[in-house]
Amino acid sequence: MGALRLPSLTSIFAVSSARRSLFPRRSKQLYVRKLTSSAKVFAKTTPATEVATAESNQKSSVQEQGITPRSQDFNAWYLDVISAAELADYGPVRGTMVIRPYGYAIWEAIQDYLNIKFKETGHSNMYFPQFIPYSFIEKEASHVEGFSPELALVTVGGGKELEEKLVVRPTSETIVNHMFTQWIQSYRDLPLMINQWANVTRWEMRTKPFIRTLEFLWQEGHTAHATPEEAEREAMQMIDVYTKFSYEQAAIPVIPGRKSRVETFAGADKTYTIEAMMGDRKALQAGTSHNLGQNFSRAFGTQVSFYFNPYFFRIRYLIKNQNYFLYIKTLSMQFADENGQREHVWQTSWAVSTRFVGGIIMTHGDDAGLMLPPRLASIQVVIVPIWKKANEKDEVLDAALSIKDVLHVAGIKVKLDDSDQKTPGWKFNFWEMKGVPIRIEIGPRDVSSRSVVISRRDIPGKPGKVFGISMESSVLVPYIKEKLDEIQSSLLDKATAFRDSNIVDVSSYDELKEAISQGKWARGPWIG
Amino acid sequence: MGALRLPSLTSIFAVSSARRSLFPRRSKQLYVRKLTSSAKVFAKTTPATEVATAESNQKSSVQEQGITPRSQDFNAWYLDVISAAELADYGPVRGTMVIRPYGYAIWEAIQDYLNIKFKETGHSNMYFPQFIPYSFIEKEASHVEGFSPELALVTVGGGKELEEKLVVRPTSETIVNHMFTQWIQSYRDLPLMINQWANVTRWEMRTKPFIRTLEFLWQEGHTAHATPEEAEREAMQMIDVYTKFSYEQAAIPVIPGRKSRVETFAGADKTYTIEAMMGDRKALQAGTSHNLGQNFSRAFGTQVSFYFNPYFFRIRYLIKNQNYFLYIKTLSMQFADENGQREHVWQTSWAVSTRFVGGIIMTHGDDAGLMLPPRLASIQVVIVPIWKKANEKDEVLDAALSIKDVLHVAGIKVKLDDSDQKTPGWKFNFWEMKGVPIRIEIGPRDVSSRSVVISRRDIPGKPGKVFGISMESSVLVPYIKEKLDEIQSSLLDKATAFRDSNIVDVSSYDELKEAISQGKWARGPWIG
Repeated sequence: MGALRLPSLTSIFAVSSARRSLFPRRSKQLYVRKLTSSAKVFAKTTPATEVATAESNQKSSVQEQGITPRSQDFNAWYLDVISAAELADYGPVRGTMVIRPYGYAIWEAIQDYLNIKFKETGHSNMYFPQFIPYSFIEKEASHVEGFSPELALVTVGGGKELEEKLVVRPTSETIVNHMFTQWIQSYRDLPLMINQWANVTRWEMRTKPFIRTLEFLWQEGHTAHATPEEAEREAMQMIDVYTKFSYEQAAIPVIPGRKSRVETFAGADKTYTIEAMMGDRKALQAGTSHNLGQNFSRAFGTQVSFYFNPYFFRIRYLIKNQNYFLYIKTLSMQFADENGQREHVWQTSWAVSTRFVGGIIMTHGDDAGLMLPPRLASIQVVIVPIWKKANEKDEVLDAALSIKDVLHVAGIKVKLDDSDQKTPGWKFNFWEMKGVPIRIEIGPRDVSSRSVVISRRDIPGKPGKVFGISMESSVLVPYIKEKLDEIQSSLLDKATAFRDSNIVDVSSYDELKEAISQGKWARGPWIG
Repeated sequence: MGALRLPSLTSIFAVSSARRSLFPRRSKQLYVRKLTSSAKVFAKTTPATEVATAESNQKSSVQEQGITPRSQDFNAWYLDVISAAELADYGPVRGTMVIRPYGYAIWEAIQDYLNIKFKETGHSNMYFPQFIPYSFIEKEASHVEGFSPELALVTVGGGKELEEKLVVRPTSETIVNHMFTQWIQSYRDLPLMINQWANVTRWEMRTKPFIRTLEFLWQEGHTAHATPEEAEREAMQMIDVYTKFSYEQAAIPVIPGRKSRVETFAGADKTYTIEAMMGDRKALQAGTSHNLGQNFSRAFGTQVSFYFNPYFFRIRYLIKNQNYFLYIKTLSMQFADENGQREHVWQTSWAVSTRFVGGIIMTHGDDAGLMLPPRLASIQVVIVPIWKKANEKDEVLDAALSIKDVLHVAGIKVKLDDSDQKTPGWKFNFWEMKGVPIRIEIGPRDVSSRSVVISRRDIPGKPGKVFGISMESSVLVPYIKEKLDEIQSSLLDKATAFRDSNIVDVSSYDELKEAISQGKWARGPWIG
């Protein structure tokens, strides 16, 4: 907790200033099916053209090219993987992103898990409007300071200039408090614990797919409590939920901690964060949970009634080895519906966004492309049938289909790539690049021996390949499930080892400088 | 299909012109826990104040009032139910809506069902940015004509005036086609079938919660096909999915049909619709599916290559009782990757929105409030424990808790209302108003006899009450499941009978006028 950490979080969001081509021709891999030229628009740092349309005549020129190896240029690799694995594409408006089905499926897996956890911990989903009166944003002083440079404003509605311009939500604390004020009168309305899945808009100048985009998807939890202790417990509970998710589902060994004053959320008393080390050793803020104190409830007047109740108790103490007692009168706070003073509620908010998808890519990927943790993969197993002669095709496809059915019934997410447009070799590369955890190969000889070949995405080449696994469901299903579990923990182990080998304990400023210059994280004692 | 239908769809969206108080005091029911005064803002037809804040000092004055009986004033009843059942509240910006947890849970149930059906029929979820360059909207002539009066425009981003103003999506056909153009080159990229769950904005002047709001939630499916036949099949398939959902889940006997030219979606060749009859006999458009033809693909240049292949065949025919054959050469269209002509793709789009929640309220509700079909209810069974003396409380609560566990384990959505703030009578009314299908009552005498009392929401009073149902799980669970099924079909039957008794066959203009003047739907032969 509270680990001293450099480099600053913001440095990773910047697009490299050298305006390199996003799709260099140097790599020879042939599995990239299609890249769109509009991708180039994204990295432009000049906002000269707000809207760029695709130069469709360049389309074919970027086809059939490979991705940049990760070891060669991390940033180029990242953008290439997103494009080649069809995770996302660039929207027509600068800095916006289209999340394609294969990328959206990762977000859906994140949603499925978190949604259950949020409900288990007592939160209900709901939905707030995205248009916020500009005056709301100004009510909380540090909030407006933090967000006003990034706002998108609606000034025209239904053909008319609006009397008050509307903010497209960058986050919802203000409108949430406006509503909470109407819903919370009595302490019996507390705790109020809600969550929404929504899009938010922040007018960033430097953008990067998933990591920082003008519009992104997230969940934002908002809660109101009677006491500061309860709010603090809630803020901690939710950063715990995020931490567990990161370790157990995403196989990302995040470090939970508290942000320094300077990096605390605009409007919060405390911001807890989970920080993940990416493959280039930069930090990614993967989730945050804020203890908002009474900052927003004061700004919006969200209050409950209470009164002080006299409360008597005794303490025992010693004077000169004699026991004495003291009978003490104190005041304890009680909540009331009507009479009594009004107390502002104590609040939290917490969020995880589509940025997490970027974190998954940058944590586990390698030179060959994406590597998905099995628990978040929309395709956990791909079956590649192999045949040469036409008379082999039917029996191989029949066997492949029945394996697919067996795995599907067992709850394993499986895809059979039975197209005859591409060679098996092309398919191997393609599905590796897409990060599918396990590949099953099946050819005519496997059919005769009633067995298959299994390859692990996380162990490249021969060592990751096992021959002669029986295709009987009683053997195959448990084998695949076991391998998926192994891959899941192996990804976490690898990421943890990488992280730990890149954190240096420092005890002086010189040591800190040395660690930073090596691109590592530095750990030292925290002094307020 | 294609039934002649009046009154016009638009008439139901208008707020009654008499500016009545939304929360009249005449009703004596006491189960309304809390109403917020900001609700009043919603019904204002003058756009004088774009942003209205809650008059918090009026809050207590609207508490503990009842809902207007449905039979007395349908529109007032509708607004009261939404407020009293805590389905939604009014956002700070005119015409916007906050969907509260109990209302959002209905939307989640709709999503859960449709999401599975969409995937089963081959669609993938994804996400498009909500900001659309203004120039896109202008590309399809009838589209811009239909939507331009309703647009919200972002003109300022990050503190600067934008070079091109951005439309906050009213629907996504334009940006979808912009992207499809980049993803579709070959016929092998077809069909492309996607869906997104998103918020959309339409600057309506007259709004009504769920039915028509400035911002609403929906799903929008978008597909591209190689042939017009395939697009037509898809448009029909999706209206079928919606129809099945309406009947089987929402218990709403919608009438599927095709819209007249005038009411066809701006940019579509054909619009299929499902129309539902509300409790006031007005029609609600509950879902639409559009065959877009090539309108958008022409506007955006979304094309695939094809060539004509000579194709030979024989026909047999008779001349003077002699068999002859004719060998014929024709051209059949084939798709190609490279050479050949380019053909614009054929498209569909289809949507269901949070308006459906309004349809559920207005179809099934009665004087006592909401009535939810069991398959969409987030609480299917509420348990109300009853005790008078303190020594009864423990045994009653113990029994209630164990019944709750038994039902929960059996997959029934159950809530135990064990608060001691309210009387059992108050709770009965409250949960009836919330539309919970089944209530279980349990008192000290029930505990001794190991039985419970069960009340059906859809059969008011004594006739809906059954005494002495054993609390043994082997009896209780199947009994409750059977009753839930009965309620589900009974709601559909009732709505169907109501609908059919309010449709009149007409064969002349006078008969049509007569039917309309009685507030009924008129059915007659369709003449293009």
